[in-house]
Amino acid sequence: MVQRKVKIGLIQMKAESSPELNLIKAIQKVKEAAKKGAQIISLQELYRTLYFPQTKKAQNFRFAERIPGQTTKIFKEIARELKVVIITPIFERVNFKRFHNAAVVIDADGSIAGIYRKVHLPNDPCFYEKFYFKAGDLGFKVCKTRYGKIGILICWDQWFPEAARLLALQGAQLLFYPTAIGWHSKQSINERKKEQTAWEIIQRAHAIANGVYLASVNRVGREGKLHFWGGSFLAGAFGEIIARAGDRKEEILMATCDFSEIKAVRKVWPFLRERRIKTYQGLMRRYPS
Amino acid sequence: MVQRKVKIGLIQMKAESSPELNLIKAIQKVKEAAKKGAQIISLQELYRTLYFPQTKKAQNFRFAERIPGQTTKIFKEIARELKVVIITPIFERVNFKRFHNAAVVIDADGSIAGIYRKVHLPNDPCFYEKFYFKAGDLGFKVCKTRYGKIGILICWDQWFPEAARLLALQGAQLLFYPTAIGWHSKQSINERKKEQTAWEIIQRAHAIANGVYLASVNRVGREGKLHFWGGSFLAGAFGEIIARAGDRKEEILMATCDFSEIKAVRKVWPFLRERRIKTYQGLMRRYPS
Repeated sequence: MVQRKVKIGLIQMKAESSPELNLIKAIQKVKEAAKKGAQIISLQELYRTLYFPQTKKAQNFRFAERIPGQTTKIFKEIARELKVVIITPIFERVNFKRFHNAAVVIDADGSIAGIYRKVHLPNDPCFYEKFYFKAGDLGFKVCKTRYGKIGILICWDQWFPEAARLLALQGAQLLFYPTAIGWHSKQSINERKKEQTAWEIIQRAHAIANGVYLASVNRVGREGKLHFWGGSFLAGAFGEIIARAGDRKEEILMATCDFSEIKAVRKVWPFLRERRIKTYQGLMRRYPS
Repeated sequence: MVQRKVKIGLIQMKAESSPELNLIKAIQKVKEAAKKGAQIISLQELYRTLYFPQTKKAQNFRFAERIPGQTTKIFKEIARELKVVIITPIFERVNFKRFHNAAVVIDADGSIAGIYRKVHLPNDPCFYEKFYFKAGDLGFKVCKTRYGKIGILICWDQWFPEAARLLALQGAQLLFYPTAIGWHSKQSINERKKEQTAWEIIQRAHAIANGVYLASVNRVGREGKLHFWGGSFLAGAFGEIIARAGDRKEEILMATCDFSEIKAVRKVWPFLRERRIKTYQGLMRRYPS
């Protein structure tokens, strides 16, 4: 039986230039989170490397790996040994011409519970993801794990209410957004505040609209022109912030979800049940008239 | 040519028990807003009456009126005379067995630019709308007015990202949510705060997700077991609060939208263009597997 109270650990890290070092650090922190009682642990987007999509360089494709591969092998063992669910983002190489910004959910028995390939890819200055990744081809699929039904989305997906909705409709209780978002060095304090606020608000709104918990795991630290703002958080089904990390330091953010709250909130706010799907056809078109 | 800067006026009122008195007050306030320079003026949901869906009483159907009818006749004249767009919610009687929670958009020349019938109806304790209203059958349609393309949604629609999205995809620059939302007298201060915050956040998120301005117009005052919390506001396309009314008094909230901002924000955040519609099919089902 799936238990109701679940402790999660969000690993907010600074990236080093060495992928091996980042992996070692990630392993240590995942173990530390498990020791603190975390049952579901999420790493941040592309944590094994610096955020390389800041520039377009063919040499960065060398960081890609297979699923299954080295990273999944290591975390499958840790997950089984410590009986924890681990979400590990991976720069995935499918073949020589197909790469994805992916994340793997490893269940507490060491099996792979699901793979997600990022669907919405940014292509802004300093976020040239379309140079590296193909849009995800696996759709949005809820993952059943020992500690609950979870949905994985990655970073830019957070701006699209459709993605969160699709996972909640399938029964997701908790959404994870491994992320790499930061300010450009040219931005004013005011612009920075506005952007981070919008980023937090839209995710809290997904929690509210869908009656789910939502965890966002972002990196920290300065890399080139980008200052990643951390601020990893867990929001409850009312959109309330349950825990939030700072914007400068590495942190293991620990927080507890009580999935029985979902039922309570949806009793007051039965939004999923009350969707009027016959009026939503226009959503399937890019620009309905 | 549609101008870029548009001044709006949101009429936050306390309802009296007399529909005639409420209408007179609404007329005065609309004129006052126009005098202050408002070009688009919105009244709150069901402003002509107390929020009667707080209880289920057959006698309340007497408050319903036709579209066109007395209310539209009056505001069409005012709109034409003062050259303002007016959004007037109406408890609509279609025939003896069909009633809607509707709103009419009257253009600055006095013509009817659009009618919206509320699609998402609450049926919570003290919000028994399904007793009175049929779900809207006109869908979500953007209204072209002299001062911009606007979308009308009503109160409970604000919890559904689909509704805001459908209007933005049709080109809406500014969404209006005439509203009647309040706390139950039994709720604690903490619950009240949580609920109002969620209400504001989800609407700000619609502005962010869609790159549009969003105005919410709520009533104030105690009626029976409900304390309507006012807090009418205008949010910008970054989700930022541009202006916000208090929670106790009647107010004419004046604020300015600059529609050229929409283009600027969408350049940074091209979310509408980047929707991956092929992955969204599940949205058309109530509970996709």
